[in-house]
Amino acid sequence: MSLDKANKMIKGLKDLKFDKMYNDDFLLTWEKSDDEIAATLQVADILRALRENNISIRLFDSGLAISLFRDNSTRTRFSYASAANLLGLEVQDLDEGKSQIAHGETVRETANMISFMADVIGIRDDMYIGKGNTYMREVSKAVQDGHKEGVLEQRPTLVNLQCDIDHPTQSMSDMLHITNTYGGVENLKGKKIAMTWAYSPSYGKPLSVPQGVVGLMTRFGMDVVLAHPKGYEIMPEVEKVAAKNAKSTGGTFKVTNSMAEAFEGADIVYPKSWAPFAAMEKRTDLYGNGDFDGIKALEKELLAHNADHKDWECTEDLMKSTVGGKALYMHCLPADITDVSCKAGEVAATVFDRYRVPLYKEASYKPYIIAAMILLSKVKDPVATLGKLAADAPKRFWG
Amino acid sequence: MSLDKANKMIKGLKDLKFDKMYNDDFLLTWEKSDDEIAATLQVADILRALRENNISIRLFDSGLAISLFRDNSTRTRFSYASAANLLGLEVQDLDEGKSQIAHGETVRETANMISFMADVIGIRDDMYIGKGNTYMREVSKAVQDGHKEGVLEQRPTLVNLQCDIDHPTQSMSDMLHITNTYGGVENLKGKKIAMTWAYSPSYGKPLSVPQGVVGLMTRFGMDVVLAHPKGYEIMPEVEKVAAKNAKSTGGTFKVTNSMAEAFEGADIVYPKSWAPFAAMEKRTDLYGNGDFDGIKALEKELLAHNADHKDWECTEDLMKSTVGGKALYMHCLPADITDVSCKAGEVAATVFDRYRVPLYKEASYKPYIIAAMILLSKVKDPVATLGKLAADAPKRFWG
Amino acid sequence: MSLDKANKMIKGLKDLKFDKMYNDDFLLTWEKSDDEIAATLQVADILRALRENNISIRLFDSGLAISLFRDNSTRTRFSYASAANLLGLEVQDLDEGKSQIAHGETVRETANMISFMADVIGIRDDMYIGKGNTYMREVSKAVQDGHKEGVLEQRPTLVNLQCDIDHPTQSMSDMLHITNTYGGVENLKGKKIAMTWAYSPSYGKPLSVPQGVVGLMTRFGMDVVLAHPKGYEIMPEVEKVAAKNAKSTGGTFKVTNSMAEAFEGADIVYPKSWAPFAAMEKRTDLYGNGDFDGIKALEKELLAHNADHKDWECTEDLMKSTVGGKALYMHCLPADITDVSCKAGEVAATVFDRYRVPLYKEASYKPYIIAAMILLSKVKDPVATLGKLAADAPKRFWG
Repeated sequence: MSLDKANKMIKGLKDLKFDKMYNDDFLLTWEKSDDEIAATLQVADILRALRENNISIRLFDSGLAISLFRDNSTRTRFSYASAANLLGLEVQDLDEGKSQIAHGETVRETANMISFMADVIGIRDDMYIGKGNTYMREVSKAVQDGHKEGVLEQRPTLVNLQCDIDHPTQSMSDMLHITNTYGGVENLKGKKIAMTWAYSPSYGKPLSVPQGVVGLMTRFGMDVVLAHPKGYEIMPEVEKVAAKNAKSTGGTFKVTNSMAEAFEGADIVYPKSWAPFAAMEKRTDLYGNGDFDGIKALEKELLAHNADHKDWECTEDLMKSTVGGKALYMHCLPADITDVSCKAGEVAATVFDRYRVPLYKEASYKPYIIAAMILLSKVKDPVATLGKLAADAPKRFWG
Repeated sequence: MSLDKANKMIKGLKDLKFDKMYNDDFLLTWEKSDDEIAATLQVADILRALRENNISIRLFDSGLAISLFRDNSTRTRFSYASAANLLGLEVQDLDEGKSQIAHGETVRETANMISFMADVIGIRDDMYIGKGNTYMREVSKAVQDGHKEGVLEQRPTLVNLQCDIDHPTQSMSDMLHITNTYGGVENLKGKKIAMTWAYSPSYGKPLSVPQGVVGLMTRFGMDVVLAHPKGYEIMPEVEKVAAKNAKSTGGTFKVTNSMAEAFEGADIVYPKSWAPFAAMEKRTDLYGNGDFDGIKALEKELLAHNADHKDWECTEDLMKSTVGGKALYMHCLPADITDVSCKAGEVAATVFDRYRVPLYKEASYKPYIIAAMILLSKVKDPVATLGKLAADAPKRFWG
Repeated sequence: MSLDKANKMIKGLKDLKFDKMYNDDFLLTWEKSDDEIAATLQVADILRALRENNISIRLFDSGLAISLFRDNSTRTRFSYASAANLLGLEVQDLDEGKSQIAHGETVRETANMISFMADVIGIRDDMYIGKGNTYMREVSKAVQDGHKEGVLEQRPTLVNLQCDIDHPTQSMSDMLHITNTYGGVENLKGKKIAMTWAYSPSYGKPLSVPQGVVGLMTRFGMDVVLAHPKGYEIMPEVEKVAAKNAKSTGGTFKVTNSMAEAFEGADIVYPKSWAPFAAMEKRTDLYGNGDFDGIKALEKELLAHNADHKDWECTEDLMKSTVGGKALYMHCLPADITDVSCKAGEVAATVFDRYRVPLYKEASYKPYIIAAMILLSKVKDPVATLGKLAADAPKRFWG
């Protein structure tokens, strides 16, 4: 994007109302207004344009960005690190192995102890139903109290890097990819998007991706279909959010147990494995009771259950049934690719390979989405600050 | 603190003599003169004031701050990272697992190999009596030699992040908390502070906190009481330091085996568990001989021994016996809180809870204390440099 | 070095042709022209001079330097971190334990996913013959494609931090040490350098150091002797490179099975253990087949084989046979020192100790060599950029 267009976009932000994002967290997309979602997407695009034009976006001359990953991660970890570095913040990992957390520290105490110079805290905690998002809110409450009580000079804001309910940095990156593919939000009305379960030989993938997708994509007047085998339901409250969204934007939200039905005439398909909500809940209880034999037994049961649905694969045949046979194929990556990363997986190798470049681009928005979330929570007047950046144009690289 | 007051404090530094801190390490508080201690405390306050006024203190445009933690840590690790980042240094962990240290490298060699662009080295090594502080001096000697010999362009200075003898970044933060609570060092004369042992269900906590506290707090004319059950003596040489300090400042230093006596009429109480010095010495020998069965047996013995003193708890009753029933309760955190983090611990939950905010504030000084230690060892003319910073006022955050 | 001399060196770069280094990787020294090698060595010296004169070389205001270490490392890890930090890049480790790489991601995908804001990727992968360098080229191809396809805004360039074939950051640091010891490349003609195997009680050290040394040192008209016991041959293709280099520069390259012959009249000696190429190849095959019993058996066999050559030690007697008894002793460190780090090793303690300071200096060039490699691959007009830096002289440290 040219600097001219970026400048226009910066001015365009004035038409949106997003002042409540200042000093607030980003935990669930459906807690944000339509204007706030739009502002986040647009600021991400603006930041990308500024960087592409070799403009440094180092708003912080010092400060920490705490990262707390309770699950393995490559792309989200690097996206968060990239976003923090872009803004001038240094990532400091809270490695619960290295730290004294296991020694009986409370969340409230630890949250304050790591935040004396922290401007932002990014958390990934997606393994147990009812836990991750709750934990983030506990941390947020703790540092807000710490700031009010004079312990912390600044109020660190939180970014949800994936929880049990939502994965906002993913779904927003997905959305930016869709918007840029279709040339703007205004062109999405009536488009059909299929968020469907797909078979994977691995066990217990989080529900936050499909939930995040139906919770967000239903806000743009699209026809959103959620498809999965029986037993692979997502959290009922997220279904309610999706239904409500669809109603208020003139779109639709439908749940089906047929992958074929979901793909039929779809403009966008997002086939991806996840664990059934009820099983995840059971697992959380077993974990809470320290019943590791129970967890193993459940795992076996689930894998067997999964194996009944090997036909839920994004094949060339299914792709042919989409609009013009050319639906936009999406995935949060890494995908389980049949005959590549496993014997039978989520997607046929030829389909995946055809969409490799768009898939990488989809992922490439994440650092900018995260940077936009941080910027909108820290900067009081984003229009003025971004405008000044674009005008002064400090160089990112002097070579 | 206002920028005006900070400027006055900067000018006030001229009355102190601390030029020997330049290019020197910070290993034990009692190796520093009264003026040097005062300068460190004041610079910490000044740095906090500058940051609170959104002034960037990035004195280094590049450079590394090496961290070497031989024991788990959350707050000291993050405090060190915060301090380094504040000054513009990037933390680089020497993870002895990842590195080749186990492959027979000598301390001298490793110290030089990691220090080509290191301005500061922070070390935590508190597990074995006679080892930690000795190790720090070895590292310091190695990099001083390396600098003299032309291997290292700069002489990295060391900060003791906790050793077997002292925990200066903790005791200095504690002191800043006391000073700010009582409105200045000048108001401490005659105040009674009780550094007392307390029961904990865990084993082998370092002695460096109580030793650091009595080694420092005896320098301000206070009446310092060290209380512990028989067998929980601290290192005799530190007791001597404390006695000598007290004598020269018109204060007192007393050792007692009664917690009640220590609390009676105290202005400040610091109840905290530690391992007995003699046992720690024995453990170091066992460790040296690779006698891990012996270590296990000793551990059992010590836990049983500990359990004889469950009555050493900071209860509401004990608190009532302090001045006005309202002594300042202190702890380096995390505390073992009865019925919260353990069945029986160092402190009653209601006492701890009442002092939660002051305790967090106590901890919040540590990043600034560490930054002050680094600054005073690296900057030749701190009055001029800090004065220029306050005048130019480069922004920490441009948002 | 004075700033004046640095300025002259910067102007002197104009006489060298190295424009092809721009946007290219640094994988093998013998893929670089003589001018490119000369430019790298000179830029390293210039960067050192600038830093010594307190000039900041922070060309990047933000950006990541990815590091991927598939083997333990202290000095290379810290050298890479120092170089990145010097230029303004933040190191982000790709820890294959923490990441999802084991979960079936392809190299192509991962390489792109971590590189959205990466300016450089440093890789150490030296354990298996035929693997490390190949992996680096795969990563390079992946990110070049990613850049062409619009996924990555910038093309991250690769630095080989040690592979199965070459260890260019080591050999180039060694070369800078030799050049500075002898007062310039022009004084090396006819000097005899002995790269010899030496006994070590440890197993399977990479071949990349001796290969890197003979592959580079044969380019300066020196008489290079490679000495090792029978069975400890290096890769034949690297021997060919060395022979060809020697021929075209008027030097010689000789292989012998006698350490004494190699040391006789040598100006420079580099005694260092390595594993035999054939055995390393066998190990790679065993590893490929998952034959861990086979690997153990091979290890035993190799250690026994090694033990037949305990007489391959750099002793005082051998040193006496060198020019004036004072050859320059070199090592990449850490060395296996007889009676210090092991019972019998590569070098006598008295020899090692006499050369300790030069050895540390040899190591101290590595951060600058790495920084020079990065700079020459990222900066379009290094003469202009370095000249401007030297003229503007932004401070590294403001204290």
